[in-house]
Amino acid sequence: MDLSDFTGYVGVDIGGQSVRVGTLRDGELVVRDFATPSEYAPAAEQIVALARELAGGTPRGLGIGSPGPLDWRTGHLLWTPNIPWKDVHYPRLGDTLGCPVHVDNDANVAGLAEATLGAGRGHQIVSGFTLGTGIGFFTIMGGHIYHGRLDVEGGHQLIDPNGPRCGCGARGCLEAFASASAIEARTGKKPSEIDDPEFWKEIGRYLAWGITNINVLVCPDVVVLAGGMIQRGPMLFTPLLEYVQQFNCVLPPPTVKVAELGHQAGIYGAIVLARQGHGT
Amino acid sequence: MDLSDFTGYVGVDIGGQSVRVGTLRDGELVVRDFATPSEYAPAAEQIVALARELAGGTPRGLGIGSPGPLDWRTGHLLWTPNIPWKDVHYPRLGDTLGCPVHVDNDANVAGLAEATLGAGRGHQIVSGFTLGTGIGFFTIMGGHIYHGRLDVEGGHQLIDPNGPRCGCGARGCLEAFASASAIEARTGKKPSEIDDPEFWKEIGRYLAWGITNINVLVCPDVVVLAGGMIQRGPMLFTPLLEYVQQFNCVLPPPTVKVAELGHQAGIYGAIVLARQGHGT
Repeated sequence: MDLSDFTGYVGVDIGGQSVRVGTLRDGELVVRDFATPSEYAPAAEQIVALARELAGGTPRGLGIGSPGPLDWRTGHLLWTPNIPWKDVHYPRLGDTLGCPVHVDNDANVAGLAEATLGAGRGHQIVSGFTLGTGIGFFTIMGGHIYHGRLDVEGGHQLIDPNGPRCGCGARGCLEAFASASAIEARTGKKPSEIDDPEFWKEIGRYLAWGITNINVLVCPDVVVLAGGMIQRGPMLFTPLLEYVQQFNCVLPPPTVKVAELGHQAGIYGAIVLARQGHGT
Repeated sequence: MDLSDFTGYVGVDIGGQSVRVGTLRDGELVVRDFATPSEYAPAAEQIVALARELAGGTPRGLGIGSPGPLDWRTGHLLWTPNIPWKDVHYPRLGDTLGCPVHVDNDANVAGLAEATLGAGRGHQIVSGFTLGTGIGFFTIMGGHIYHGRLDVEGGHQLIDPNGPRCGCGARGCLEAFASASAIEARTGKKPSEIDDPEFWKEIGRYLAWGITNINVLVCPDVVVLAGGMIQRGPMLFTPLLEYVQQFNCVLPPPTVKVAELGHQAGIYGAIVLARQGHGT
């Protein structure tokens, strides 16, 4: 993907701590940010001002990655756990700016960045997990975020219906076994504080299980692992990749890659979304 | 879908017992068949003759549903378990007939029929299982068979890595728990001979587990269940649908429907494939 194609498109990465607004200028990422205000109205004003500044006038398109639960079709955010905003209609920013607006949840937007500019670039179908507090899941097809009927939630695939209770209400989702919050609930420690290889072998096994199900149900060209937990490196990935080899029989194992864009994935993805839109 | 759009397209359904060649005339299915010969060459001759007869000349397109393992991109069948044909190149039929040829495996082709003309008609994304000797899986998107990198094999999603050995070599695939052959291996009886409600509750639970993973990983508009085992009716579906309700939390449960086209799905799907091709 030629980064010069993105000139004039602006991305917005909404986070609990800060709102980041960025664009690509001659292929270089330029970002402005401000502390996330407790109400949406002043945030909207700053987003509009920064988008105009970064685009040097009216942007060609605005892409927004936002925490959910979010209706990507309407761009409506009713509420979200970590920001006290209520009843946000992101597309109204486009009325003010005079440009199209495309909105999606932050896991999908970060996945879009990895699929187009990061670890999955050059591939047609890219799926992945974001391994954080929860386990986000994304599939990008032909440069567009795949949603299906509502939105995919592959971090909630069922591992054991008698397993631990998940935040979603079900029992035994992958997220209830292998997310940072599940690990902390089970061990009393953060993933960064655990150095027992046997423990990471177990987590690697659960994630390989989830990757196997991605392989047979979606069969992507590559699976990308993103999120804070990838910093555990070989402690996690060595057993994980061994289990991926062991579990995949009917189809060859998928290629598994580690995300490349780190904390910039959100803003890169929002810029890509600004240009690509949601496809058909 | 308007059935008159299919005039002139011919479908071929390759089976272990018979080869069926069909078309739609004024929306009515017209089928000719012959016993599957032990070699491919005489079958090819008959397919060509029947296709010309049914199309009233050169067909506008030929669609073929064949047992696999099959490379749908090249239409090359190296071998297949239940027919002694070797090294079949189906697209050569098109050279003889002078029309495009599209080939896919029989589960995908039957799924295409259900998605476009059967239980899934009117929906954009239709996934399903074919519950037979094995557990086939298909996803149809916008009227085209979805393959991903190779082809999807959702009947081999992982239920329990310590579970029974599957025909694919892995342990604990869905197919190793809930296919007709797995049931027969475990109980010594065919599914049609088992009337214990507790047994069918267990099978319904495994299939609901698989449907839950379809829902979170693919999120189709509807899930269609096909194949011989659907004849067990409420004995299977009542507990299955209860478990689908119980297991799906993060997303609403998917709509589950029973296949409508029965043993005609293969020939209908081949005709649809003849017209639609594989898309992009």
